[in-house]
Amino acid sequence: MNERIRHPGLRNLRRTATEAAALIQPGMTVAMSGFTGAGYPKAVPQALAAHMEQVNAAGGGFRIRVLTGASTAPELDGALARVEGMELRLPYQSDPAVRERINAGTLDYIDIHLSHVAQHTWFGFFGNIDVAVIEVAGILEDGRLIPSSSVGNNKTWLERADKVILEVNRWQPAALEGMHDIYYGTALPPDRKPIPLVRPDDRIGEPWLRVDPAKVIAVVETDAPDRNSPFSAPDATSERIAGHVLEFLAHEIKRGRLTDNLLPLQSGVGNISNAVFAGLGKGGYQGLTAYTEVIQDGMLQLLKDGTLRMASATSFSLSPAGIEAFNRDVEFYRERIVLRPQEISNHPELIRRLGCIAMNGMIEADIYGNVNSTHIAGSRIMNGIGGSGDFARNGYLSIFMAGSTAKNGSISGIVPMVSHVDHTEHDAMVLVTEQGLADLRGLAPKQRARLVIANCVHPDYRPMLQDYFDRACHASYGKHTPHLLGEALSWHQRFIDTGSMR
Amino acid sequence: MNERIRHPGLRNLRRTATEAAALIQPGMTVAMSGFTGAGYPKAVPQALAAHMEQVNAAGGGFRIRVLTGASTAPELDGALARVEGMELRLPYQSDPAVRERINAGTLDYIDIHLSHVAQHTWFGFFGNIDVAVIEVAGILEDGRLIPSSSVGNNKTWLERADKVILEVNRWQPAALEGMHDIYYGTALPPDRKPIPLVRPDDRIGEPWLRVDPAKVIAVVETDAPDRNSPFSAPDATSERIAGHVLEFLAHEIKRGRLTDNLLPLQSGVGNISNAVFAGLGKGGYQGLTAYTEVIQDGMLQLLKDGTLRMASATSFSLSPAGIEAFNRDVEFYRERIVLRPQEISNHPELIRRLGCIAMNGMIEADIYGNVNSTHIAGSRIMNGIGGSGDFARNGYLSIFMAGSTAKNGSISGIVPMVSHVDHTEHDAMVLVTEQGLADLRGLAPKQRARLVIANCVHPDYRPMLQDYFDRACHASYGKHTPHLLGEALSWHQRFIDTGSMR
Repeated sequence: MNERIRHPGLRNLRRTATEAAALIQPGMTVAMSGFTGAGYPKAVPQALAAHMEQVNAAGGGFRIRVLTGASTAPELDGALARVEGMELRLPYQSDPAVRERINAGTLDYIDIHLSHVAQHTWFGFFGNIDVAVIEVAGILEDGRLIPSSSVGNNKTWLERADKVILEVNRWQPAALEGMHDIYYGTALPPDRKPIPLVRPDDRIGEPWLRVDPAKVIAVVETDAPDRNSPFSAPDATSERIAGHVLEFLAHEIKRGRLTDNLLPLQSGVGNISNAVFAGLGKGGYQGLTAYTEVIQDGMLQLLKDGTLRMASATSFSLSPAGIEAFNRDVEFYRERIVLRPQEISNHPELIRRLGCIAMNGMIEADIYGNVNSTHIAGSRIMNGIGGSGDFARNGYLSIFMAGSTAKNGSISGIVPMVSHVDHTEHDAMVLVTEQGLADLRGLAPKQRARLVIANCVHPDYRPMLQDYFDRACHASYGKHTPHLLGEALSWHQRFIDTGSMR
Repeated sequence: MNERIRHPGLRNLRRTATEAAALIQPGMTVAMSGFTGAGYPKAVPQALAAHMEQVNAAGGGFRIRVLTGASTAPELDGALARVEGMELRLPYQSDPAVRERINAGTLDYIDIHLSHVAQHTWFGFFGNIDVAVIEVAGILEDGRLIPSSSVGNNKTWLERADKVILEVNRWQPAALEGMHDIYYGTALPPDRKPIPLVRPDDRIGEPWLRVDPAKVIAVVETDAPDRNSPFSAPDATSERIAGHVLEFLAHEIKRGRLTDNLLPLQSGVGNISNAVFAGLGKGGYQGLTAYTEVIQDGMLQLLKDGTLRMASATSFSLSPAGIEAFNRDVEFYRERIVLRPQEISNHPELIRRLGCIAMNGMIEADIYGNVNSTHIAGSRIMNGIGGSGDFARNGYLSIFMAGSTAKNGSISGIVPMVSHVDHTEHDAMVLVTEQGLADLRGLAPKQRARLVIANCVHPDYRPMLQDYFDRACHASYGKHTPHLLGEALSWHQRFIDTGSMR
């Protein structure tokens, strides 16, 4: 089927990106598609940015509020940030230009659990959504939409926005049709019902997104690739971290707390998670499942060789090579991959029911098991909390992973007190660095500290941390969670002052 | 029915408390009933403590690991703590003798979300449960148990413990029978199913607890009251905090975000929550519901006058006057009160589905909306996180309340950076002190800080906090969440050094 826009009325609404962008006014709240560099609109944001640049050069102050699924790409976040075109951004972002402005204090950023975004929009907490800009892979005769390579919050944006601009991206594989499962059973309290998903592979919705054609004000045709970063092979540190995680999982199986099938796996994006998945493949596991946010290259191979039986996610973030592999075996993968709205992929109800094994990266942890996923030195945002809180709080296991040092050893991944808390001591069960793993389950704070210092800290920092803990145990105001408040954040201050925590 | 123990086999197991306590050995993990000073065993722990005291005086080192529902009373926590009879305690506690030992560093305490305790026990994270000591109101002919004034984790303790000691407390109203709803549909992943509760009043289980009579090793008869602290009338600060909350709820109704029936109310225990409930009564509300942890005196009157249509909880913590009021109208209240296991009262799935309005006290908040519910000056535990995280993360609204100052003004309830984080900036929506309310929904960190400083801080501390924020905005390493790390915890350090944050 070559024609991507089969609804006659919507065909008539075809516009250039510039024409469509002109429908967005200063001060509007604009909700866009996009999750982890997949399925974001590629043309309208750039045309909007070009228009903003002209207006702003003339002193116009054209800025909008931008809501997405999660991170997008230079064509969206980068373009709008570079022309100072955003006054507010939520939720997760990872664009250098956006990050720079947030940390310069010129762009307001709300870092919110990914499972909260859709419902808070419905609750009215972000005000009215003026326009939604949504990439799709196609439009059916009756106006239903074939979702693109990510679902994110698109269902909510299409329902809640006053007006809708669609980007139909011919570059997206037509074979995406049928992979999605859009659940239309959500409601507002007090009318909510149980979500009828009990296995990661359950399909509880329909493969298409609905939109009221009367709300659509423009349809823009594109043919542009997703950000699709190349897949990078895991480095030695990631391999060692993954090794500790795999040893731990094997130990849990031996103790009878997990079966050979484990439980549905959730994993953040990046080197460490790639290494964990690769290790599962090499480890002889078969018939595993993933209930996670993002499908990455490595998972395709695991689906192929049977390590993974199926994978549920909200975004399909592949490298160019991954896209090729997918296209070669479309039918095979379509039976084994489900893409869902992020309010379902990240739903506390479902994560707890399924008992996910949550594996996420972190910036730093402290000796008591508090985890910082978002801030450098307590004040500079990195990306955002993403879905790590949804999975860590509600999963069967919450595992946080990082190198024991960063920036050539000038930063320790384990500190006396984290400079920002995203996951509390009540939520982190297992900490892992390339040095080793600390299983904090069933341990009180000081027991945790001894284990973290013994197992996770880099040798260069271990004596310093042991010394802090020893002195805190002696001199702390209270001895439940011993701290020396005058020193607790001194490692970070030293990093700011001297460039090193040493 | 005068006879409380109707099962012949269990009648034959009647023992003195001393005899029963003798069945508990050093090093055992002992799971006990009890939630907020209600339904805890009253005789066996005291007899055990007496025995421990003798053994320990002879250098015996008799200590056990103690798991409960939540806080208990002097007869349990106090008695065991005073003889140094506990090596580990979890979850929530509020006993002065326990707190003293935790903060002296001689008693390990694990502070865990109340919704996690049962499942982590099932997962095996706390090891084997050797003995359960459970207070009940009676035993049926077939061995089923009439639960006492709290349910807590009793279902799990009875199922998971190797051996069971029952205390049958004649003091508990026989009329409790029929008020409970014990859900037996839980399972371990991957076999979990949706929990079929869609309204706070739904009954999804049965009124009795099950126990395998073959596991019961002793039945002890008691006739002793619950801790039942007298109800204290709200003070002026609490009244003013409640006033702000009520004004906020009225505002949300006007904006169409809530209806006149609000949504199911959750509220922590104490003066402020009593004041909020009293205010709802005076405010003309009718037909409200509560889906919460504890039924307190004030709620009985609200049930009586129709402000509350019904209340669901896991503990029935009344004053002596409250008990009298309950007994006067047993049939009326039994139709309007449901007591559930705490894994159900606090279940993320249900709290999110129902859309609870979560109202909890706090020790302190910081200008960015991070909340400390547990630690004084970062190191001294107060009570514990309890269920506040379960409700704050998953509720429709999360409201945190405290006086703007404590200890005669020497402590500010709003600080530059909290000294311990129990609820992150991603989870707290509304902060309230007697000074005013800050609605943080949809705000980025610096916007939150301006509002918190303007609305919530005591005038004595406002200039200091404004000065900190202004300087942080200028000199912070990153300007997303501006902080001066050398000063961020200096208020707490000053309190430790001088007795005042001023």
